[in-house]
Order: sequence, then structure tokens, then C-alpha cells
Amino acid sequence: LDYQHVQVPFEITLWIMLASLAKIGFHLYNKLPSVVPESCLLIFVGLIMGGIIYGLNDKSPPVMDSDIFFLYLLPPIVLDAGYFMPSRPFFENIGTILLYAVVGTIWNVFGIGFSLYGICQVKAFHLQDVSLLHNLLFGSLIAAVDPVAVLAVFEEIHVNEKLHILVFGESLLNDAVTVVLYKLFRSFCEMPTIKSVDVFAGVGKFFVVGLGGVLVGLTFGMTAAFTTRFTKDIRVIEPLFVFLYSYLCYLTAEMFHLSGIVAIIACAMGMKRYVEANISLKSHTTVKYFMKMWSSVSDTLIFIFLGVSTIGENHEWNWPYICFTVIFCLIWRALGVLVLTFFVNRFHVNTITSKDQFIIAYGGLRGAICFSLVFLLPDFHRKKLFIAATTVVILFTVFVQGMTIRPLVDLLAVKRKRESAPTVGEQIHIRFLDHLLAGIEDISGHWGQYYWKDKLEYFNSKYLQKILLREYDQPKSSIVLLYEKLERKHAIELAEAGQLGHGPSHPSLLNNDRTVITDKKLEDTLNPDVLENIQEILARNLYRIRRTGPAYNRHTLPGETEPVEHAKEILILRHKSL
Amino acid sequence: LDYQHVQVPFEITLWIMLASLAKIGFHLYNKLPSVVPESCLLIFVGLIMGGIIYGLNDKSPPVMDSDIFFLYLLPPIVLDAGYFMPSRPFFENIGTILLYAVVGTIWNVFGIGFSLYGICQVKAFHLQDVSLLHNLLFGSLIAAVDPVAVLAVFEEIHVNEKLHILVFGESLLNDAVTVVLYKLFRSFCEMPTIKSVDVFAGVGKFFVVGLGGVLVGLTFGMTAAFTTRFTKDIRVIEPLFVFLYSYLCYLTAEMFHLSGIVAIIACAMGMKRYVEANISLKSHTTVKYFMKMWSSVSDTLIFIFLGVSTIGENHEWNWPYICFTVIFCLIWRALGVLVLTFFVNRFHVNTITSKDQFIIAYGGLRGAICFSLVFLLPDFHRKKLFIAATTVVILFTVFVQGMTIRPLVDLLAVKRKRESAPTVGEQIHIRFLDHLLAGIEDISGHWGQYYWKDKLEYFNSKYLQKILLREYDQPKSSIVLLYEKLERKHAIELAEAGQLGHGPSHPSLLNNDRTVITDKKLEDTLNPDVLENIQEILARNLYRIRRTGPAYNRHTLPGETEPVEHAKEILILRHKSL
Repeated sequence: LDYQHVQVPFEITLWIMLASLAKIGFHLYNKLPSVVPESCLLIFVGLIMGGIIYGLNDKSPPVMDSDIFFLYLLPPIVLDAGYFMPSRPFFENIGTILLYAVVGTIWNVFGIGFSLYGICQVKAFHLQDVSLLHNLLFGSLIAAVDPVAVLAVFEEIHVNEKLHILVFGESLLNDAVTVVLYKLFRSFCEMPTIKSVDVFAGVGKFFVVGLGGVLVGLTFGMTAAFTTRFTKDIRVIEPLFVFLYSYLCYLTAEMFHLSGIVAIIACAMGMKRYVEANISLKSHTTVKYFMKMWSSVSDTLIFIFLGVSTIGENHEWNWPYICFTVIFCLIWRALGVLVLTFFVNRFHVNTITSKDQFIIAYGGLRGAICFSLVFLLPDFHRKKLFIAATTVVILFTVFVQGMTIRPLVDLLAVKRKRESAPTVGEQIHIRFLDHLLAGIEDISGHWGQYYWKDKLEYFNSKYLQKILLREYDQPKSSIVLLYEKLERKHAIELAEAGQLGHGPSHPSLLNNDRTVITDKKLEDTLNPDVLENIQEILARNLYRIRRTGPAYNRHTLPGETEPVEHAKEILILRHKSL
Repeated sequence: LDYQHVQVPFEITLWIMLASLAKIGFHLYNKLPSVVPESCLLIFVGLIMGGIIYGLNDKSPPVMDSDIFFLYLLPPIVLDAGYFMPSRPFFENIGTILLYAVVGTIWNVFGIGFSLYGICQVKAFHLQDVSLLHNLLFGSLIAAVDPVAVLAVFEEIHVNEKLHILVFGESLLNDAVTVVLYKLFRSFCEMPTIKSVDVFAGVGKFFVVGLGGVLVGLTFGMTAAFTTRFTKDIRVIEPLFVFLYSYLCYLTAEMFHLSGIVAIIACAMGMKRYVEANISLKSHTTVKYFMKMWSSVSDTLIFIFLGVSTIGENHEWNWPYICFTVIFCLIWRALGVLVLTFFVNRFHVNTITSKDQFIIAYGGLRGAICFSLVFLLPDFHRKKLFIAATTVVILFTVFVQGMTIRPLVDLLAVKRKRESAPTVGEQIHIRFLDHLLAGIEDISGHWGQYYWKDKLEYFNSKYLQKILLREYDQPKSSIVLLYEKLERKHAIELAEAGQLGHGPSHPSLLNNDRTVITDKKLEDTLNPDVLENIQEILARNLYRIRRTGPAYNRHTLPGETEPVEHAKEILILRHKSL
């Protein structure tokens, strides 16, 4: 037996295997995941395993290594989040998200830090030796909402899109603030005196860290898109580039002390559109599937390790400090959301309701990022107290808040996500309104969101697409792409009708009338009137649009376009024939 | 700048990135890969990079770590090979393959070892200090044909299926022999005296290593298949299990000093059928795609590292020894193939032609496995000579043989692989003949290949499928599955007709007759008569078969089957309607 030789890969594979099996286990009992969030179950499994290891070895089980967390477990989750980020709601609410992420996080850090310093002054608690700087440092790591925890809980409760993107976007973008404040206070702790110039440098650094991250991300994203232009002959390595460039982007950002999370999100959002157009359909399925798979495994491992690391002797149980940390985390977040939303609602027509505000405040879950940061603290005599407080805050938010948020959403009747995808008609209307608003903003000279979006679209179609897309001479309206996708899906469904459909009785099927089958499948998915409607709209209007050129685009005159290729018409005809 | 922190993942990602970019580079010039095999180009890139590193640092560039090779680079390639192994030709020729792999390899080891020992006795060459055991040890590592090198070259020359499986199968299965002989001679080198009992233990060990590998592989394969029964609710982690179990299987086999290559191949071949039936279509695309991608990257890295490692001062250039090694490798392989094929041909109707024999002998490429084994040798004063000889043999086989094999195949007019997939008619005939032959063997009491295949199929449908498949109560004839697959592919093609098809002129398309489009696409792929024929066969016969139950199966009576589900008939009707 030569275990030494294979130990490292063997144990890694075994951990991943156990995590995956645990996941399967939960889903075998259908009722369990609908009551308790998966993250809680996984932490619970981790606690049990930690307890077993502790009981057998009589020493603390290994804690999650911060390096492993930041270098290997976090990137897949953030990449997945960035790649599948719904870009429309994200950019529509970018101002609000940034306000919550930047001002909100700073508010929380200082609020929690100063109030805990106040608690430390109470003699009965024996905490006088914890300085203000240490409290602020602790505040900087405990204040940030964790994207992994938020994603795990919010994916299951299906609140409306805007609410989801506000909480989730904040949790992703606050990384830049957290990184800066954490490093700033950590270096202040080690400095003998703090000059005002250092404070200003910190403020400047925030912009460098955030915007630098975006810049690194976009650079790598564009390079990735450019690379996939040339992979036509070797389709198998296409998915690889998506992963390689994103990971390199994260590592590069980390290397320069920029925000890796912001970088990888910018990279994923930037490259998505071009990569999708360049790579084959199968490659894209692989990319999507593998991203989901990877992030799901990382997620599982993080929560299990969180549970395992909780057990042991790394903690100093000063309960007043711990309890007040939990209370202050809740209070300052609630106050912050209330105050910031007050300002946000003054400048927006589409306001954030008080129910939504409550869920935003209540959804401020803490997770593995705080946990890894607290272990990265330099050794000082109260580190174990901070570890204990962080652990309790994480467990409290994940278990208490995570488990009660679903009943609360039900109770408050918070607006849910609509189940159905937008219809083709809706999509056409949204597109039409965008163009209209962009025109209005252009005329009125207001540099609003639609103005910038339109300018970006112009820059994209005029320059970026020509450089980054393989077949830039045949730009397709996204609505045509959507139609093709629906068409493809429909064709597959038809082909699989034998497996999937529950057909009518035997004899009626034997007559050779093809409409029986076609209508059968369509009825299953859509109301016949709606369908007929859509079919008519598409068959007539799309056809006309493509004959007269891309009339949607404000930047090309009708005469400029190429004559429509005849081959393309087959698509429409195929549709009519259905 | 904090490079230290991200160094390990950063450099690994960068290497993979460079390898992938090199691959894209070759394919940009379409003519290059058709003349020079990719493996040669990659080694060449490696040589250049090694030269640059050597020139800049003035010390030998790092050699490929044997641990990294065996633990991380080799498994993906072997897994890919095993998963996509065409099982029919493999099992049809298993006897011949095993003969080549076991007897052929032993023949080569002793042939090369003893003849090199003879060369060492020539005083002029100053090699008297190389003992017989050392020569045999060297023979054991240089004799084995390398699967990675064979795959890289044979994938590009498209020889007929039987020839391909003979060379490739041998290169995979000789691993067990190589492992045993290499470890045996290595331990003999360190022993003071060798008893005859040790030699017998070595012979016994061969069976343990080979059959143990198969056993470990099948165990893990069946477990993997069983696990995928329960993944219905979490489709995203399905592909993961395929990779995790295969890798664990490889590591477990290595841990017990069994043949990891044999184990992973048994695992992949065993689980493939059940996993495919259990997991979703998208998961399966991901599995296939990622396997290909991973093995392609590993392959690329191996050849680049091989080039980099060649440069440096690890070599002792005793040219007589090196030249005679190359010559003996060629001679003993040619002799071995001739002698073994003589015996094989006496027992087979379908003989191996002399052209095929030449290609089998000439296709005995050496590669990274030899290279890694030679670096794993214990330190002794002639190790650098062995490294030099191994390097030259690898470069000679990959460059000279690899580059000339394609012209030789053309020149000799070796039978090529047929380009088209077997038609439905052929498939039905093959299946019919299998059953007929199984029946004949059963009656005549001959335990031949068809007898065993039939028994295995019976065991599979009676026990294995019920345990391993999620929907075991609906077993599908593989021909129905094939039909469904063709149907699905066809539907997608139809849907994409707008993109892919080159339709007739515009006005003719405008008439609403659906047959225009349908026939158009079908014409592209098949002769209309053939197609009609197939359609008729399928639509009529399949229907009847399924109404009367699986008449193919010799183990069930017509009355035993369930009444055919009505829903299934939709499939047939859908077809008729086309």
C-alpha cells in the first residue's frame, strides 16, 4: 500500500465526492430542501463531521485554509454569478447597488466598529484592552454581506428580479470596499502613528481597487472573446478559454491587490456576449453546465468546511461581545438600508417598497468570506474572540435568517419572480421602448441610462463586434437569435415526443394526419391563441424587418444594408410550415 | 505586487493557456497539421522553449515531474480513450490484443535487454559496467508502446478500425506488463541475490496487477452507474460523478500497485452504458466534451514538456549504445509482430494482412510513459545514459515514424476507415447475425465469443440494468435509441436550416409547400431512395417489433412482455409524417 504517493489528489477527490453525495442525499427526501436551505444542511453535516474528527483525535479539526478558499473555492462561484448575471436589471439598478455596496458597507463598518468600541468600555465585560482600531478592523470584516450565502438562500426563495439583484449585486460589489478597509485597518493596527495622509491614501485606494478590478476584468474578457474567434477548427478547447481567462483575470487582480471578485465579474459579463456568438452550441452547453457544476461543488465544500471549522478550541467565548456583535450587525444594516433607500426613492419613479426594504435588510447574510478574513488576521491576543464572534454571526445569519426568510417572504407577500419567460411580444415592446427613450434622452440632451446604453451599443456594433466576432459581417438581431433558439427547442421537443408526450388513444394516432402530433406538443406548452398570435407576428413582421434591413437600428439608414440572403428565408418558411 | 501568493495556480493556468494557444496557432495554417503530426509540432515548441530557458538561465530547464505526469496528466487521456473505446472491435479482437500486449511486450523487453547486454560486451564501446539486470530494466521501460503517442498519430491517419484497435489496444493493455516487469527488475537491481521464488512471484504478480486493475475498475464503474441513478433532481453534478469515480479508481489502483491504466479503462467501459442511460442529454454532452477537452490539454502539455525536458545536461551521449537501442527497438518489434501474427492468423478466418502487420510494427511509438519511468529510476552512475537513449528513441519514433507513417499508409494503400456511419440496414444485419451465431454456438456447445456476449447480455438485462438504471422497467432496444438519436439530430438540422442550408432560389421557397424544405435537407445527407427505404423499414418493422414485444431477445417469450405503451407510438407516427 502506497498511500503517501496519491494522498493529495486522493483526499481532494474524496472530499468533493462526499460533498456531492451529501447533496444527492438531501434531494432524496424531497421535503427537506423545501423547508431548510441547503446551506444550513451542509453546515450541519460539517458540524457533525467536525465533531467526529474532534472526538476521535481529541484535537481541533483543521480549519478551512484561507488561501484555498480565496484561490480555488471562491473564483468558480463568482464566475458563475458573473456569467449568469441578468445584465438588464443589473445595469438598470447599478446606481442603487453601488450606493448600498459602497456607502452602505462603509456605514456598517464604522457603525459596528464604534458601537462595539462603546461596549468594550463597559468594565463588567472585561474588554477594555480591545482598541478602537481593532474594533474597526473587526467591523470591516464582519460588515460585508457574503455573495455565496446570499446566492444559496435567494436562489431558493424566488423573490422579484429587482429585489434579488439589489441584494446580490451589493454582496458582489462590496468586495472592493471590504478589501480596502480591511487592509487599511490592518496596516493601521501595525503602524505606530496614523497620519491624515494615510487616510486620504485609503480613500484614493478604493477607486484604484474597484476601477482597477473592472479594467483588468474587461481586458481579460475582451482577450478571451478575441481568442475564441480562432477556435473554429478545434472546437474541443473552446470552453477551456472561458475558464482560463477568467481565472487568470482573478489571479492577476489578486496579485496587484485589486478586487478579484469585481475583476472576474467584469470579465464574465464582458466576454459572455461575444464568446456565445463565437463558440459552437455544444461548447456553450459545456461552458454553462461546467460553470454551474463547479460553482455548485465549491459552494457545497465551502459550507461543509465552514461547519467543520466551527468545532474546536479556536474560540474565546466572551458572550457579551458576541451577542452585541450580532445585535449591532442587525441594527446597523437595518438603519443603513432605511436611510439609503430614503434617498434612492427620492430620485426614482419605481420606488423600493417597505416590504422590499425589510427583505434587503434581513437578507444581509454573512458567510465564508468573513470567516476566511478573520483567520487571516495577524496574531494578537484577542484573535480568538473575533473568531468566535464571526462564527456566531455567520451561523446566526445562515440558520436563523436563512431559515425564516422564506416564511417571511410568504407572510409579507413580497412580489415574486414571474415564472414564465417574457413573451416575444413583450420583448419587442421592451426593445421598442428602449429605442424610444434613448431617442428622447438624445433630443432632450439628458445623459441618462438609455443614452449611454445606446452609445455603448453603437460602439459595440461599429468596432467591438468587428474585432471580436468571427462572423461580424452577419450581425443578427437578438430577437432573431431568440426565435432560432425557440425553434430549435421546439424541434427537439417534437422529436422527443415519443418519450415525453402523453398522446391520445391508440387508434386516433394511427391516422397519418401530422397536425395531431404538432398541436399536441404545442398545447402542452402554450395556449393556442397566444401561440397563433406569436407565430403570426414572427412570420409576418420578422420577415418584413429582414427584408427591409435592420430598421431597429438608429445608426444605419435603410439603404445601407446588404440584400437579405435567400438562404435565410428558409427559417421563416420552415416556421410557416409548422 | 504579491506574486508569491498566487504563483502555483497562476503558473499552471499560464502553461495550459500557452499549450492551448499553441494548438490554435497550428490550426490557423491549415496545411501544417495535415503534413506534420501535432505531437511533433508540440515537441518542437517545447524544444524551442527549453532552449530559451536554457539560454537565459544557463542551467537545465526543469524536467517533467513523473508524479505530475502519472497523477494528473495521464488519467484524463486514458479516461478519454476508455470512454470512447469502440467496444465491439475491441472485444472481437481481445485475444489478439492481449497476445500482442502481454507476450509481445515480454518478447520485446527480453529481446532488447539481452541484445543490448551483448553490445555492452564490446570493449570499444566502454560499456562493460552496465549489467544484464540494468539492461533488462532499461528494456522493460523502453519496450512498451505508448498510448498517448499512438493516439496522437493514429487519430490523424484514419486506418481501418481493426488495425487501429490492435495498435491502440496493445498500447493500453501493455501497462500491466510494463508495471510488473519494471518494478520486478528495479527490485532485483537492489537485491543482493535473486532466488527462483522471486521470479515466480513476479509471474504471479502479473495476474494480480492486471486482473486486480480490471476488478477495481469494474467496481468503481458500477458504483458510478449506481450513483447516477439518484441524480434526477440535481442534474448539474451528474457529469462530476463520471470524473470523480474514474479518478478515484485510478488512484486506488495506483495505491495498491495495480495497473491504473487498466483500471480506468475497465471503469470507463463498464460505466459508460449505464451512465449514458441515466444522465440527461446535456449532462452527457458536457461529459463527452469535457473529457475530450481535458485529454486534449493533457496531451498538449505532455508533448510540450517532453520537448522542454529534452534540453539540458541530463544526458550521457554514448552514441553506440543509443543507436543500437533504436535499431533493436525496431528489429525486435518487427520480429515480434511477425511471429505473433503468424500464430494469430492460423486461428482466425479474418487474417491480418502483411500490410497491416507492417503498420502495426511501424506504429510502435514510444512516448511520455517511458520518459517518466526513466526519471523514476534509482540513481546509479549510468542513469544519464539511459535518459539519453530514451529521449532519442522517443524523438526518433515520434518524428521519423510519426511523420512518415501517413505517406506509407497512402503508399501501401492500407485499408482505411470507412467515412460513413453504418446504415440502419447494416446495423440490423449485424445484430441479426450476432443472435444467429450465439444460437449456433449454443447448440454446438462451443463457448465462443458470441456465446459469452449473449450470456453477458442476459446477465445485464436480468440483473445489472435493474440495479443500475433509473428506469429499468422500460428497457429500450439500442436500435430504437439510435433511431431516436437520428430523429433528434434531424430535427435540429431542420430547425437550423435557415443557417445551414443552401436553399433553392427565392420564389420557389415562397410557396408554402413544406416538402420543399424537408426534402432539401434530406437530400443533402442521403440518397432519396436509400432514405425512403430506411424510413419504410423503420416505420413498418420497428412498429411491428414493438407491438409483438422484443422478439430479438432469446430469453423472453413473446407473451411475457408488457403491452406496448401508446405514448411511444408517437415516435413512429412522427416519423411517418416527415
